[in-house]
Amino acid sequence: MDDPLTYRDAGVDLDAADRAKRALGPLLDAAGDENTLSGPGAFGGLYAMPRGMSEPVLVSSADGVGTKLKVAFMCGRHDTVGRDLVNHCVNDILVQGARPLFFLDYLATGEMDEGVVAAVVGGVARGCRENACALLGGETAQMPDFYAPGEYDLAGFVVGVVERERLVDGAAVRPGDRLVALRSSGLHTNGFTLARTIVFERMGLGVDDPFPGEDASAGEVLLRVHRSYLAEVWPLLERGWIRALAHVTGGGIAGNLPRVLPERLGARVDIGSWTVPNVFSRLARGGGVAGAEMYRVFNMGVGMILVVSPEREAEVLGALGDVAWGLGEVVRGRGVELAGGR
Amino acid sequence: MDDPLTYRDAGVDLDAADRAKRALGPLLDAAGDENTLSGPGAFGGLYAMPRGMSEPVLVSSADGVGTKLKVAFMCGRHDTVGRDLVNHCVNDILVQGARPLFFLDYLATGEMDEGVVAAVVGGVARGCRENACALLGGETAQMPDFYAPGEYDLAGFVVGVVERERLVDGAAVRPGDRLVALRSSGLHTNGFTLARTIVFERMGLGVDDPFPGEDASAGEVLLRVHRSYLAEVWPLLERGWIRALAHVTGGGIAGNLPRVLPERLGARVDIGSWTVPNVFSRLARGGGVAGAEMYRVFNMGVGMILVVSPEREAEVLGALGDVAWGLGEVVRGRGVELAGGR
Repeated sequence: MDDPLTYRDAGVDLDAADRAKRALGPLLDAAGDENTLSGPGAFGGLYAMPRGMSEPVLVSSADGVGTKLKVAFMCGRHDTVGRDLVNHCVNDILVQGARPLFFLDYLATGEMDEGVVAAVVGGVARGCRENACALLGGETAQMPDFYAPGEYDLAGFVVGVVERERLVDGAAVRPGDRLVALRSSGLHTNGFTLARTIVFERMGLGVDDPFPGEDASAGEVLLRVHRSYLAEVWPLLERGWIRALAHVTGGGIAGNLPRVLPERLGARVDIGSWTVPNVFSRLARGGGVAGAEMYRVFNMGVGMILVVSPEREAEVLGALGDVAWGLGEVVRGRGVELAGGR
Repeated sequence: MDDPLTYRDAGVDLDAADRAKRALGPLLDAAGDENTLSGPGAFGGLYAMPRGMSEPVLVSSADGVGTKLKVAFMCGRHDTVGRDLVNHCVNDILVQGARPLFFLDYLATGEMDEGVVAAVVGGVARGCRENACALLGGETAQMPDFYAPGEYDLAGFVVGVVERERLVDGAAVRPGDRLVALRSSGLHTNGFTLARTIVFERMGLGVDDPFPGEDASAGEVLLRVHRSYLAEVWPLLERGWIRALAHVTGGGIAGNLPRVLPERLGARVDIGSWTVPNVFSRLARGGGVAGAEMYRVFNMGVGMILVVSPEREAEVLGALGDVAWGLGEVVRGRGVELAGGR
């Protein structure tokens, strides 16, 4: 007769899970807002619909951090990826004109390390606060033999709201409209499988080595937090100045800008209009990556693109300040032409 | 000089990802409802808030399938886990009185196998249809060196709605209230790390071997789909007959029922009131698992518990039919006492 089995013998420690959940309690308590009606123990999170809207449309998006997580594992730094995730999700609904209401996370790990769980969820909570969005709940799953020791996956879901008549769907975009770029902070959360190969294999760097051309380590450069554009873009949305918005994620400028343009319209992007940040040029050189491939995989310094009327461009650029510049224009046709360069 | 690198060399195939996404298009198109305002290409999914509610409260929950996925991998069967996930999430908001509006999934995999992705997301879409809920969007992430070949993780997130005055929060529960059980279909999505250890190691079964005492293989028994209780419970909620509802997930009856009872109230569960299904008794025997541990890890045949007034019990049992039975009662005190047995 074999020894009697327990859940813990099989690899799942319910007590550790309970401790991790209790440790998160105060963090989640503090992460609500005035519409949050539930505490952390509830099966589902409760959120009172904001009052006074005439035709509210809920806007929702799911995303993961992707293999940027591997850099966090290498650095032993777990408090930034949650902010990446929230900011990514918030940008994904912002481009349709929505402000975030609440967020939920999914954290899956092999072994439940309470310190790591608290750091990751703490980052999520901070990301939510920075976007004035409630952290309504989440799931922390213990999945031994799924994830390597010390590793985890992190995904999240955001729900926002917009008045139906204020939805930004690109329908108002016309040929000749201007593209305005908002700069990214770095890789954001895309292209990390390629970037890691280049930095850690081709360039032979460790996470603590200085990154060439930067006053920061390779780990710090790669972990720079995905920017949220809510604070910059929201006032412009409220004024009705924006005809379309694209979040530059996987697929780069050419993969994302066409998603928000009407049929039979494309864009001409002037690649001489900005200096590609150091991290991207070092990656291109370090990996011998072709220019076209670089623009297909990475944001190249452009985190978000606004489409505005020619008459509005100067005001928009003035309001945004030096994080923004004129990137190009909307043209008849389809797709994105990367033109110019210097 | 090393060879020039591409994203594909590094392990990410954007073309395969595009193909997988295109293959999902029709499936997602068909998964909307009359309130769905967006197509699959949008950054965020758009869902018009239902009209005519006076104080709508959004209810949201995130969950994963957990290591039940390992059984799906072993069986090469990928079309059921999506239904598990949707049903689990729907039950988690049903217990607060909400009906589901929409769902989003997160599917993370190492290599993008279009057939597997289509089967998994097809299961999610079917689960949504079965719960009259829109599949509003999702993320399919390609994360080489995170997931073993042929493996993936699957999480999801549901948003539902309830009128504030119809929220089920247990506040009306009184000592002497009756517990009504709804039977589970099997393990649902909890305890799989222990169950797999017992079935595949201690009992030495393969997924295609007959499961003792069942007219089905071990794989079939373990993959039985988590039941949604929406269809049974919703009419009772509409009639206002339910004072509290608990979804029996990780932690079993004793871990979940107290979550919905007011302070200073507990429950007495009569474990002689039902016959524990064969799968659980075989697991207990096969793993030599103590009874208390079994009840702490598994649902033991009880998928959901309703709390109703003593006057209402007979009507509720009559409406639910033979999937339900009287399980016990609410008592002063705290926690759950598992009493009786035969």
